[in-house]
Amino acid sequence: MMARLLLCLAALLAVVPANAQSPRARDLGVPFQGTPGPLNAITDVAGVTVGMTTLIEGEGAHAVRTGVTAILPRGRDSFARPAYAGWFSLNGNGEMTGTTWIEESGLLEGPVMITNTHSVGVVRDAVIQWRVARGVADNSGYWWSLPVVAETWDGVLNDINGFHVTREHTFAALDAARDGPVAEGSVGGGTGMICYQFKCGTGTASRVLTERQGGYTLGVLVQANHGGLRQLTVAGVPVGREIAAAASERPELGSIIIVIATDAPLLPHQLQRLARRASLGLARTGAVSGNGSGDIFVAFSTANPDAGADEPPPAQLLANDRMDPLFTATVEATEEAIVNALVAGREMTGINGARIPAIDHAQLREILARYNRLPAPAP
Amino acid sequence: MMARLLLCLAALLAVVPANAQSPRARDLGVPFQGTPGPLNAITDVAGVTVGMTTLIEGEGAHAVRTGVTAILPRGRDSFARPAYAGWFSLNGNGEMTGTTWIEESGLLEGPVMITNTHSVGVVRDAVIQWRVARGVADNSGYWWSLPVVAETWDGVLNDINGFHVTREHTFAALDAARDGPVAEGSVGGGTGMICYQFKCGTGTASRVLTERQGGYTLGVLVQANHGGLRQLTVAGVPVGREIAAAASERPELGSIIIVIATDAPLLPHQLQRLARRASLGLARTGAVSGNGSGDIFVAFSTANPDAGADEPPPAQLLANDRMDPLFTATVEATEEAIVNALVAGREMTGINGARIPAIDHAQLREILARYNRLPAPAP
Amino acid sequence: MMARLLLCLAALLAVVPANAQSPRARDLGVPFQGTPGPLNAITDVAGVTVGMTTLIEGEGAHAVRTGVTAILPRGRDSFARPAYAGWFSLNGNGEMTGTTWIEESGLLEGPVMITNTHSVGVVRDAVIQWRVARGVADNSGYWWSLPVVAETWDGVLNDINGFHVTREHTFAALDAARDGPVAEGSVGGGTGMICYQFKCGTGTASRVLTERQGGYTLGVLVQANHGGLRQLTVAGVPVGREIAAAASERPELGSIIIVIATDAPLLPHQLQRLARRASLGLARTGAVSGNGSGDIFVAFSTANPDAGADEPPPAQLLANDRMDPLFTATVEATEEAIVNALVAGREMTGINGARIPAIDHAQLREILARYNRLPAPAP
Amino acid sequence: MMARLLLCLAALLAVVPANAQSPRARDLGVPFQGTPGPLNAITDVAGVTVGMTTLIEGEGAHAVRTGVTAILPRGRDSFARPAYAGWFSLNGNGEMTGTTWIEESGLLEGPVMITNTHSVGVVRDAVIQWRVARGVADNSGYWWSLPVVAETWDGVLNDINGFHVTREHTFAALDAARDGPVAEGSVGGGTGMICYQFKCGTGTASRVLTERQGGYTLGVLVQANHGGLRQLTVAGVPVGREIAAAASERPELGSIIIVIATDAPLLPHQLQRLARRASLGLARTGAVSGNGSGDIFVAFSTANPDAGADEPPPAQLLANDRMDPLFTATVEATEEAIVNALVAGREMTGINGARIPAIDHAQLREILARYNRLPAPAP
Repeated sequence: MMARLLLCLAALLAVVPANAQSPRARDLGVPFQGTPGPLNAITDVAGVTVGMTTLIEGEGAHAVRTGVTAILPRGRDSFARPAYAGWFSLNGNGEMTGTTWIEESGLLEGPVMITNTHSVGVVRDAVIQWRVARGVADNSGYWWSLPVVAETWDGVLNDINGFHVTREHTFAALDAARDGPVAEGSVGGGTGMICYQFKCGTGTASRVLTERQGGYTLGVLVQANHGGLRQLTVAGVPVGREIAAAASERPELGSIIIVIATDAPLLPHQLQRLARRASLGLARTGAVSGNGSGDIFVAFSTANPDAGADEPPPAQLLANDRMDPLFTATVEATEEAIVNALVAGREMTGINGARIPAIDHAQLREILARYNRLPAPAP
Repeated sequence: MMARLLLCLAALLAVVPANAQSPRARDLGVPFQGTPGPLNAITDVAGVTVGMTTLIEGEGAHAVRTGVTAILPRGRDSFARPAYAGWFSLNGNGEMTGTTWIEESGLLEGPVMITNTHSVGVVRDAVIQWRVARGVADNSGYWWSLPVVAETWDGVLNDINGFHVTREHTFAALDAARDGPVAEGSVGGGTGMICYQFKCGTGTASRVLTERQGGYTLGVLVQANHGGLRQLTVAGVPVGREIAAAASERPELGSIIIVIATDAPLLPHQLQRLARRASLGLARTGAVSGNGSGDIFVAFSTANPDAGADEPPPAQLLANDRMDPLFTATVEATEEAIVNALVAGREMTGINGARIPAIDHAQLREILARYNRLPAPAP
Repeated sequence: MMARLLLCLAALLAVVPANAQSPRARDLGVPFQGTPGPLNAITDVAGVTVGMTTLIEGEGAHAVRTGVTAILPRGRDSFARPAYAGWFSLNGNGEMTGTTWIEESGLLEGPVMITNTHSVGVVRDAVIQWRVARGVADNSGYWWSLPVVAETWDGVLNDINGFHVTREHTFAALDAARDGPVAEGSVGGGTGMICYQFKCGTGTASRVLTERQGGYTLGVLVQANHGGLRQLTVAGVPVGREIAAAASERPELGSIIIVIATDAPLLPHQLQRLARRASLGLARTGAVSGNGSGDIFVAFSTANPDAGADEPPPAQLLANDRMDPLFTATVEATEEAIVNALVAGREMTGINGARIPAIDHAQLREILARYNRLPAPAP
Repeated sequence: MMARLLLCLAALLAVVPANAQSPRARDLGVPFQGTPGPLNAITDVAGVTVGMTTLIEGEGAHAVRTGVTAILPRGRDSFARPAYAGWFSLNGNGEMTGTTWIEESGLLEGPVMITNTHSVGVVRDAVIQWRVARGVADNSGYWWSLPVVAETWDGVLNDINGFHVTREHTFAALDAARDGPVAEGSVGGGTGMICYQFKCGTGTASRVLTERQGGYTLGVLVQANHGGLRQLTVAGVPVGREIAAAASERPELGSIIIVIATDAPLLPHQLQRLARRASLGLARTGAVSGNGSGDIFVAFSTANPDAGADEPPPAQLLANDRMDPLFTATVEATEEAIVNALVAGREMTGINGARIPAIDHAQLREILARYNRLPAPAP
């Protein structure tokens, strides 16, 4: 009982920044293009809620450093009101369940979940169990029960073969989902993640289009666990190579999951186009999408709330040639979400004493300044 | 302990025909083209093993009518020796995990598992657990742990929301896998399945090419749970419409998983081509692949045993323009495997007293005869 | 001048049945399911027009037996008003230009053209020239100029390496397009085509859904040039094997292009689903889609006339789970269009005296009767 | 005759740098990662030959600024010896014919051609004509005749609607193909192209892997016609925004074709992976792949010279987990090839007096220096 209580607390806490005073990339002066929304988070897209369960327990051979992230396109209505969606695999060394139905139907029928590689199954079935328990199952063939669950591998820090994620952890993440600020770094599914050889994990960012562009909002959430140090590029600056001069190189460890939300009224094939653009934002941080990387992206639109109805009303949509600002927003917000995940990292000690350092904020700023990308003093 | 013992017995029994004396489609005189292998089963492809756990317990609201099927491309070597593979989704209202990595890598790294829709997760994680427990985990990034698990929905007969499949059931199916005859009908993942409104489930068939064609063997295993009665076509004869005249029509219930194995040395893109041909065999039985159907196919080759090695030797392969006999074999064996699943069906009573009849063998023969497709008396 | 005049006459004549008194498959009593439209042709879909140029000239080494077919989704408005579309390649040993843009944009921006393999280029550029000449070019980047042109290979009968199709032939087909009955057999792009070793070519059919199903119309046009004799299946009857007993077998020659039109309001990803179903109709005629076959299908919807507008109005659409009748219609109309192309074939002598026979209508009926598929005497 | 002679001379000249003394990006001091081959060109891959026809004639309404580029994977053996290949469309607002067969067969059976949008057809048919004329046509079904022809749109400078490219121009490009240095900038299909609002066109680069990585060579050739000024990024520096402060902005005009060649023994599905990585190199130059852009990439391997034989010998191949250096090489060489195309641009006046400036080399260097990316004085 106490354990469950603590779990719920953890889940609740996860949605307020664990390190509320912690600077994000912008706070450090890292330059980005475009205009973010008020939260600079995926939750700037109205209706989107995010919940997380963060599991940080024990040490040594049984260190648990993992979790579950839930992104609900329409909050509690996410099962009852499917959202148009599309997906793309830049490098498919990973899992995202439910994608054949997204591709076939054009619909995302429930949340997007992210966890560690070895817990995809338990989380997947738990999403069904959660729905069944809430009594909103569909009678007509149960067509809905194909949950979308993605993963990255946290075995460097986490006892991944201990299979510590449970159905209750999944329920807690779903129950905790809400709007507002989104915690970054070692939280939720991102708890044990590493990118460019630094402690990394969950990151988010958003962009708001101008009125002339339609005034739409687009948000991105990443679970970043990819990249070798020498590849790291921030604001076009070869930060990784600068740091690597004084560091030992490790082989690349892989994978990044990218979730894109927008309120722009896009049809499924247009959301596939958005998903594909996440590749370009990832590229800006230096990645080449190595063989070991599961770089899988999904995009959904919160417009057209009745897209999944039996008799759907006509679908709002955007002309293809008005999509460029959304492409730009996707690239920019993806880039910033990754740098946010990196900046939010804090040194972590995990399984068998493995220790992963965080990027040094001062060093990052010093390198950016050396390349004239930090013109003004940081606040 | 006793439960576990019984389970293992069930698993062991599953691989010898539960109804060894039962006729298969050919035994009834249904005409097919092509030459089957000795077993007319997927296990005619040397090295392929099949294991099943069949769960038939209880009745009323808690009737369990489900199971797990495991197909191992190279038997116990399936994890250590990946096989070239390709996949295709004719209608993606279903799940087959692990397909993004098949598409990316061209490799199937372990077994193909089939179960019910709501148990995909537990089976998926259990495949990893099974591997971890056997101590053959790969140290270099654990890139292998993306199990392939497919499903069809058995909620008409099975208490699917009871989530009765466990990791132990999965282990049992994997442990039970062997070569030899393959049980058909209500066994393994196919236990609670229905096709063309008759009791259906697991079916298999094979074809052997002539020496001039290369002498290769190709086998198919289906978990058939698709189709409306009026669509049913056997040997080109509108059997369903003949029967339907005296029967009530139900709405179509969906999905068929088709697994294709061959010893022909095909490269990954060629195996995608095979997978696509399963559509044409399915079409011959009358299906139109309705919206509710998860019609997902995977094909693998047992040639090139070192395809996944660190330093793979040159790959044996077949010229594209020598593939036609394999295309024909895929179409023919898929058709026959489906009819075998149908013919192997036996009336079953399941959840809340739901009763699904088997097709009447005598009636099937009578209809075929009426259309001049049963020229000779059956043995 | 005279040549041009004759050409125009040929084009005009092409749209009224060259053999108006000729029986179609239904007239011979071949049984099909479903309800066709008034013309049993793609032009039953309101707005769709078809034009053809048929080139039958000379003999010996310079025998010309080829042509051009134009299908315009919205008649003369086809350039100005793009139509939602999707495509599928069952076996890609063929060409259909313009498909990357269909897939990206979801739109078909102009006609679908079909000709012989070696004339795809001249027809493609001619479509642009035709548009430029008519002065409706788009000023904003000319993004529209990616014509859709498909092909099948007619080198058995036609001097294909003589490159006899010209831009004027293309213009003539476009100019001749109109609604009403569509000529079948050796007309337009289908002039020199062969299927199942019989003279074949252009065929068409349609289906009308019931009011409860939405009352939509779906039409199919094929250019059929595929299949070996022994594969030929008509109404489920192994017609090819019956005939082959007394005939010599030739190697399969390839390719079929299938165009699907509907007035049902489908979105691009839903039209991909329709295109994929053409595979199942093709399978019913016995095809296995051999390596040499270019089996490429495109589907478009005439609903949503302003789908390509700068500010498109909300898009009418159909729920996914109401698509099954359209899937059935696609399968049925594809099957019938192929049999119509076959039945419309007339013996032709082509290059270097090559002679391809037509299927014998009486023999076809006799075989169908033997299999109890011709219950009533033909009219 | 004289015209033909001049044409041939132009074609011959095209393969030696028109501006042999002109600096390439490296000569200006632009920093890149990785080690280029001796020519820093696609022709560093042994066997690859490149030929171009450059058409610069007239002015005013009839200014011709266009051409044809031919890339032959195995030089004169390219038709007789197909090469394994794969392709990818990042944004499909463009044409690359022949891709359905590449995807189906895994083979590139002839050259890759690049020209302007309105000349794809004439070039496509001309490739067949060229082959027919040389008497090496395949007798077995002519399965080979599906040429690969790509395009970008040069209507800003070229009288594209004058359709000035002819079959003879195509023959000339094919006949001129040879190894050695490759001309850049306004040559071949790239003659009239513009990227990031500067005169652009053809560019190339290469990378050589270390011995430990296998010692393979990978080369890239681009026809660059994409991007808005403000997007332009060189070596991570926001060059475009720096320049744009003093320049007027134009709407983005689109498209880039990227051809990747390697001697690494990759299978078709692995070459798809390479093609996908070109996206990441493109992203490094600032592109977001706008709606109007036809960003289509093709990759081939010169290994396995008998890949297309009737009885192909075992295929050399590389383990997936040894591909990372090739991914990096693709990203790096793509980035450099684009910057090379930009740096090779020279101001051009075209149709109706349209004038497109070249990027100013001194200004480019000045901006790079300001961002500390030009440490040493240029040679």
